[in-house]
Amino acid sequence: MAQAIEALKARAAEINHLRQAAAVLEWDMQCYMPPGAARARSEQMGTLAEIIHGMATGEELGRLISEAEAQLNGAAKDSDEARLVKNARRDYDDAVKIPADLAAEISRHGALAHNIWAKARAENDFPAFAPALEKTLELARRVAEHLGYESDPYDALLDIFEPGARAAQVETVFAELKPHLVDLTRRIVESPGYRQEPRLTGTFPSQVQDRVTQGLVAALGYDFAHGRQDKAAHPFCTSFSRDDVRITIRFDEKELDGALYGALHEAGHALYEQGIPADYDATPLGGASSLGVHESQSRMWENLVGRSRPFCEFALPKLQAAFPALQSVTAEELYRAVNRVEPSLIRVEADEVTYNLHVLLRFELEREMLSGRLKVADVPAAWNAKMQEYLGITPPNDALGVLQDVHWSGGMVGYFPTYTLGTLLSAQLWHTMKESLPDVDDQIRRGEFAPLLGWLRENVHRYGRKYEPDELVRLVTGEPLNARYYVDYLQAKYGELYELA
Amino acid sequence: MAQAIEALKARAAEINHLRQAAAVLEWDMQCYMPPGAARARSEQMGTLAEIIHGMATGEELGRLISEAEAQLNGAAKDSDEARLVKNARRDYDDAVKIPADLAAEISRHGALAHNIWAKARAENDFPAFAPALEKTLELARRVAEHLGYESDPYDALLDIFEPGARAAQVETVFAELKPHLVDLTRRIVESPGYRQEPRLTGTFPSQVQDRVTQGLVAALGYDFAHGRQDKAAHPFCTSFSRDDVRITIRFDEKELDGALYGALHEAGHALYEQGIPADYDATPLGGASSLGVHESQSRMWENLVGRSRPFCEFALPKLQAAFPALQSVTAEELYRAVNRVEPSLIRVEADEVTYNLHVLLRFELEREMLSGRLKVADVPAAWNAKMQEYLGITPPNDALGVLQDVHWSGGMVGYFPTYTLGTLLSAQLWHTMKESLPDVDDQIRRGEFAPLLGWLRENVHRYGRKYEPDELVRLVTGEPLNARYYVDYLQAKYGELYELA
Repeated sequence: MAQAIEALKARAAEINHLRQAAAVLEWDMQCYMPPGAARARSEQMGTLAEIIHGMATGEELGRLISEAEAQLNGAAKDSDEARLVKNARRDYDDAVKIPADLAAEISRHGALAHNIWAKARAENDFPAFAPALEKTLELARRVAEHLGYESDPYDALLDIFEPGARAAQVETVFAELKPHLVDLTRRIVESPGYRQEPRLTGTFPSQVQDRVTQGLVAALGYDFAHGRQDKAAHPFCTSFSRDDVRITIRFDEKELDGALYGALHEAGHALYEQGIPADYDATPLGGASSLGVHESQSRMWENLVGRSRPFCEFALPKLQAAFPALQSVTAEELYRAVNRVEPSLIRVEADEVTYNLHVLLRFELEREMLSGRLKVADVPAAWNAKMQEYLGITPPNDALGVLQDVHWSGGMVGYFPTYTLGTLLSAQLWHTMKESLPDVDDQIRRGEFAPLLGWLRENVHRYGRKYEPDELVRLVTGEPLNARYYVDYLQAKYGELYELA
Repeated sequence: MAQAIEALKARAAEINHLRQAAAVLEWDMQCYMPPGAARARSEQMGTLAEIIHGMATGEELGRLISEAEAQLNGAAKDSDEARLVKNARRDYDDAVKIPADLAAEISRHGALAHNIWAKARAENDFPAFAPALEKTLELARRVAEHLGYESDPYDALLDIFEPGARAAQVETVFAELKPHLVDLTRRIVESPGYRQEPRLTGTFPSQVQDRVTQGLVAALGYDFAHGRQDKAAHPFCTSFSRDDVRITIRFDEKELDGALYGALHEAGHALYEQGIPADYDATPLGGASSLGVHESQSRMWENLVGRSRPFCEFALPKLQAAFPALQSVTAEELYRAVNRVEPSLIRVEADEVTYNLHVLLRFELEREMLSGRLKVADVPAAWNAKMQEYLGITPPNDALGVLQDVHWSGGMVGYFPTYTLGTLLSAQLWHTMKESLPDVDDQIRRGEFAPLLGWLRENVHRYGRKYEPDELVRLVTGEPLNARYYVDYLQAKYGELYELA
């Protein structure tokens, strides 16, 4: 058995090394590449992508997987070996289901549509983007047909980002969540404390923000011997193996929250990647279980840790030592400032309460667009109506509405739900974790993050991609993913903050 | 004809895109990679190298070259098409001549020998390095046998770095040079002005050095829209296409010369790469004619420009604006300070007069080692004897002698001569250039570098790799490479500086 598995691992490692190389090129493009190098870089990445695609759909890999499967007899269904081969099979079958010409068309459309979208957003011109969105949807439908599904083509797309997840289940979970979010948002907006929260005003030099956030993420446990933090236009986390997991942030010198919580969020992703077993590196067991599970880690460190009273008490002296503007701020004021709730137009800037309403809106529109029930030309009106219904505000233009996100231009239909699934999971994991670590609040207040990180390492990170997200959630929390824990968390936290009845 | 050539170009572009990707990974490793990521990076680079080697020696490329050759009938021998196919043939034949197992052995030995060398140098222990050097020579001999040669195996190795060059010709040129260098060095050391030169003392903050050197290389014409300057342990220039050519430098806060002339040197390499025609990018016509021609560009900008009186007059106000320590320095003092001559132990720190004696020594030892006339155990003694003969000094230990250079640990036998060939060429090109640009000194004094850069673009850069170095030198200067112009340059410059009779 060992020999066939080893041969499969060796081939998978080659493919993954090339993916890691491509990720280095992508990171460089975002962080350091000179502005005039875009054409050359796209050619380098195009060639790499072609070679990776050729290997990932090639006969050699198919043969190695079949040989490994044939020799798995007797291996426990849940053994690393069995799961490794299962994941390799899944990846391979999905990859070969997409014909080469469709893959090429998707790639070409992605580059083209991205530029059309960027221009349309800058010029607030939805009709200019509409044909590209139409094409994105057509390609998504074709992908769904090739991948296959039982009754709902959205399932096939969702499954790319969240293996095993089904639209109907997501719908059920989201349906449980939505009324609570809409109601809580409304009650906050109507409360006397609304828009009375303290603000962190002052000047926050970029270099100091960089130093302070590096200190904070290092305190969480992010390992700078195997990572680094750079500045980029969009914050992200990228992994070139568990030994090289990098994060990026951006700075606004008038506003501290963006870099601070951006760093905590990306460090949450990075702690996950750094915690995946070395044995899994560059194998089909490496990486995350899903985007949703990834997001559970980033949101946990950003929000359940970072926006908690204990963390504010821990961080305040460090922030005050760095920023004179914060000298007279109290920990309670910091806590209230970083937990302001306000319905707003832009998803990525939204607070904990309203954020998931932005995601729900996109999930609902995606399903209607994909099925054809909603025509592309009618999407802006549908978007604005839902914004009014869920958040009580209407975008003044499409640039601040339907054109704000990059996803649909990049062909990523079925991606948005993972943000909310991850958010819900962060609270569900937190609930389970507290049974083992009842003193976690005191530990965070003292800057002791090792127990929490250890718990996540032991219960989430060490499995890498061995389990699908639903399996993992049941294994760790004893029940399927549901909205209850997140709703409880929000109601308790914001009920107290806004003194709701 | 067009079709077969286009198919060959497309395949060559794929291979070159992967080489460029590998160069990005190498750059990142030198500049930004976290310390704990070395193992993962070597795996990524190993996989990329294997795939590149497979494509560069593959049957598909061989077939495309043959088809292009068959369809070249009628194309002028000097047309771009004919030269492109010729270069592709040369690269391919050389690559396939090296058996896969020898290539793998060289690669493994390189990694191993590098570590052995680094440790041996740190511990001043030549015997610990001797077996690795023995192995390097054995591999070099095997490579020479596979590549083939007429009478001297050194030719085959030299040809890797300097296409078309032959050891006997190099020997003739170097023989012309050596007595002049030895004599000039001796006369300088015995002159009253020796060790009386002014020194640039003070503190030079790294960040300011970085800013000032960026300003200076931009003034030369280095295009930051298609390049960048970063800090690295070893200065280098790397190209990921003509649209992305990067340089690195290092800083010593007690000493300005290193970063200043390091930046000018690397910018010289970069100006060459940025000047190669866009049409040649990622084709067998792209890149430099040879390492020697590359070095002619870096040495010209570093020395013939950067260490000239006009440049010192141009640069002084900029340096003074940045560094208070230089307030009272005159342009003449700057000129004399940066042109100090002193026999010293380390090649990379040597001045214009003594530098090439370091290279000659290595060239002579390499030839004797390769032929077996000189035993590895006797190399340190031979090294020290030549140091005494040429420079009048003897290394106090092998770390400061035979162990100082990385080349032999990396298997690069036949590389050293390119440094001196480039140096000689820089002066020969300068002589030719002055016929077209008699006012170049005044232009440099005024900071007008465009005429000089334009001349290099027109006479050197625009040919990329179309011509072999000997062809290029004859084409541009009307005669083969010779030592006369460099000897004249040194004698005039240093005769005046040290008031030699």
